[in-house]
Amino acid sequence: MSKPIVLCLGNTLFAQDAWKKLEEIAEVVTLPKGTSRATFFQLIEDPASKFSKIEVITRTAGSVAQTGRFDEELARRLPKSVKAVCHNGAGYDQVDVKYFNDRHIQVSNTPDLVSNSTADDHVFLLLGALRNFSFGARNLLDGKWPQDGSAAGTPFGHDPEGKTVGVLGLGGIGGAIVSRLKPFGFKKFIYHNRSRLSPELENDCEYVSFDELLSQSDIISVNVPLNPKTVHLIDSKAFGKMKEGVVIVNTARGAIIDEAALIEALKAGKVRSAGLDVFEFEPKVCQEIMDMKQVLALPHMGTHSVETRKKMEEFVVSNAASVIKTGHVISIVPEIRNEEWFKTLA
Amino acid sequence: MSKPIVLCLGNTLFAQDAWKKLEEIAEVVTLPKGTSRATFFQLIEDPASKFSKIEVITRTAGSVAQTGRFDEELARRLPKSVKAVCHNGAGYDQVDVKYFNDRHIQVSNTPDLVSNSTADDHVFLLLGALRNFSFGARNLLDGKWPQDGSAAGTPFGHDPEGKTVGVLGLGGIGGAIVSRLKPFGFKKFIYHNRSRLSPELENDCEYVSFDELLSQSDIISVNVPLNPKTVHLIDSKAFGKMKEGVVIVNTARGAIIDEAALIEALKAGKVRSAGLDVFEFEPKVCQEIMDMKQVLALPHMGTHSVETRKKMEEFVVSNAASVIKTGHVISIVPEIRNEEWFKTLA
Repeated sequence: MSKPIVLCLGNTLFAQDAWKKLEEIAEVVTLPKGTSRATFFQLIEDPASKFSKIEVITRTAGSVAQTGRFDEELARRLPKSVKAVCHNGAGYDQVDVKYFNDRHIQVSNTPDLVSNSTADDHVFLLLGALRNFSFGARNLLDGKWPQDGSAAGTPFGHDPEGKTVGVLGLGGIGGAIVSRLKPFGFKKFIYHNRSRLSPELENDCEYVSFDELLSQSDIISVNVPLNPKTVHLIDSKAFGKMKEGVVIVNTARGAIIDEAALIEALKAGKVRSAGLDVFEFEPKVCQEIMDMKQVLALPHMGTHSVETRKKMEEFVVSNAASVIKTGHVISIVPEIRNEEWFKTLA
Repeated sequence: MSKPIVLCLGNTLFAQDAWKKLEEIAEVVTLPKGTSRATFFQLIEDPASKFSKIEVITRTAGSVAQTGRFDEELARRLPKSVKAVCHNGAGYDQVDVKYFNDRHIQVSNTPDLVSNSTADDHVFLLLGALRNFSFGARNLLDGKWPQDGSAAGTPFGHDPEGKTVGVLGLGGIGGAIVSRLKPFGFKKFIYHNRSRLSPELENDCEYVSFDELLSQSDIISVNVPLNPKTVHLIDSKAFGKMKEGVVIVNTARGAIIDEAALIEALKAGKVRSAGLDVFEFEPKVCQEIMDMKQVLALPHMGTHSVETRKKMEEFVVSNAASVIKTGHVISIVPEIRNEEWFKTLA
C-alpha cells in the first residue's frame, strides 16, 4: 500500500530531521521550482499527478508567493483527498478558514510556540519607542555625535514609571508581554479583549472597554489576530481618542492599524513614537514610515530566531503526522474547534 | 552675612525649580560663556572673584568640555573654600577622587537613581543583539525587504531559552538588569564581583570566578565602574576565553573593553553580536563598529530620559544643599566613605 502524500509548501530551514522521520509514514512531495498559482492548480487537478492525491498540505507564509492566498478559489479546487492544511505561524490570515471549514478540511496553526519570541520582539520595540533608542541609533549612524550634542541630539525619552500599558488582546502573546514588562516598574496594566478573561488568566491586568483602553494608555500594545473584524481596528477615530504623545507597539499584523492614519498621528505628535514589526502592505513599507526616526521598524522578525523557527517547523510536521496517525491535527484553529464535523474526528 | 557660593557646571535641563529653591540658602554662580580650563583656573585663583570663594561645585559629564577632567591639577588648584564636588552621574571616572580625598574635598555621585533607566537600556541592547534586531532594522532601512527575502535577509537570531547570562558587576544596575531579565526564560544567571555578595543581594545569581564567567556565558553583561583596575578588563586574552558566538552588552563605560580587541573578536565571529551604549573613545565611535550590522550602538543613552535626568539633577542640588546645611553630602563615593576625615563630618 502506498503511503499517504504530504505536500510541503515553503522552505524547511531547521526541521530536516523531523521531515526525514515523517517519510517513514508518508510520501513527502514539494512543488517544482517556479510553480505559479496557475501551475499549482494544474498539478493538483491532474488525475495522473501525485498532487491530486495529497492528504495533508503544510505551508509557510512565504509560500504565498507560489500558490497565492489560501482563499475561496483555492479551497474549492483542492483535491477531495485533502484532510488538513497545517500552517506554520500563529497568525493564519493568509488562510480564509471559512471555505476550508465548508469542505471539512482542517486548518492548524502554531500558537503558543510563538508567544515568547514575539513577546521578546515586542518588549524590544516598546523600550526602543519609549526611550527613543532607535532615534539615537540612527543619529549615531548619521554622524550626529558629538556634533549634535549629548545623545547625538536625540530627544529625551521616557521611563516606565507612572505609565499605563494598554494591552489590546491579552492572549498567549499579550500575556507573555505583560509577564516580561512587570519588573520594569510601569504603573498599571489594562487590557481589552472581546470578553473579560477569568481572573487567573488576567495576570493582574485590569479589564477595560476598547474606548477606555484608548484614552487611558500611555503605551498601546497591539496583539489581536487579523480578521475581518479587526482590520483597521485602530483608525483615525481611534487615534483621536488616545492620549497626546501615546506610544504604539504592533507585532501582530499591520492591517489592524490604518497605516495612513498612523502616519498622520505620528506627524501631528499625537503618537510620539511607534515600534512596528508589521506593516499594512508588507513587505512594502512606505517611505514616510522609514523616514520617521521616532519609528523603530523591523522587517517582521517576531519569530525570527533559530530556536523558535525550529520548534514551529517541527510542530507543523507533528500536525501532519497526527493527521496521518489519528485523522486530526493537534492544534485546530478556533473557528473549526467547535464544529460538529471536526468533533467527530477528534 | 553673605550666602555660601555654589558653582554650577554644565546645563540644567529639568531641575530649574530645585535650583531656584537652593538660591534661598546659597548664591549660585555659573561660568561665563566660552570659559576654557585656563580661564577657569584664572577665575578660581583671582582673590577678588566670587569663584575663589566657592564652597560647593556641581558638575555634569558635559562640563568637562569647559574645565577638563577633575584631575590632580584641578584638585590642587581649587580654592581652600571648596568642601564638595557633587557629580551628576553614577560613573565619576572624570573625577580622580584620590586627589580630592587628599585635600578633604568630598565627592558625591548619583547612584541608584540611574539603575532603572540604565537597566532598561541594557535589556533593549541585549534583546537587540541576541535577536539581530538592529541588523534587521538596518536591512529594512537599506531597502533589502523583500529583495533579500524573509526578515530582509537578516540572519536568524537566538532566544533566551537555554542561555546563560553572565553579569560582570552585580550592583545596583546589574541587579536591576537581572530582575528585568528573569521572566524572559534564560537558563541561568551567573555573576562575578571582586567579592561574593550576601545571599539576599545575589538575586538568585550564581557566584563564579572571572574566568568562569568568561567561559560559561552565552551573553556577557558589563556593569563595572571604570577605574584603573577595570580599564581593558575585557581584552583579547579575555575574549579568547569566551564561548564561540558570545553576545556582549556594555552600558557601563567603553574603556572597560579593549575596543580594538572587540572589533577583532566581532570580525572573527567569536563575538556574534554586541549591544553598546558606551565606547572607548566616545563621543568618537570608530567607523568599523558603525559599519558592523551585528552591533547595536547607541550614543550613551543609559540615563537619557526626562524622568531620570530630572531626578539626577534634583539629587545633585540636594547634595549641594546638604553640604550647606549639614557640612556633608548625601551620597559620598565609596573611596571616601570610610576615611576618618569624612567620618568626622557625617
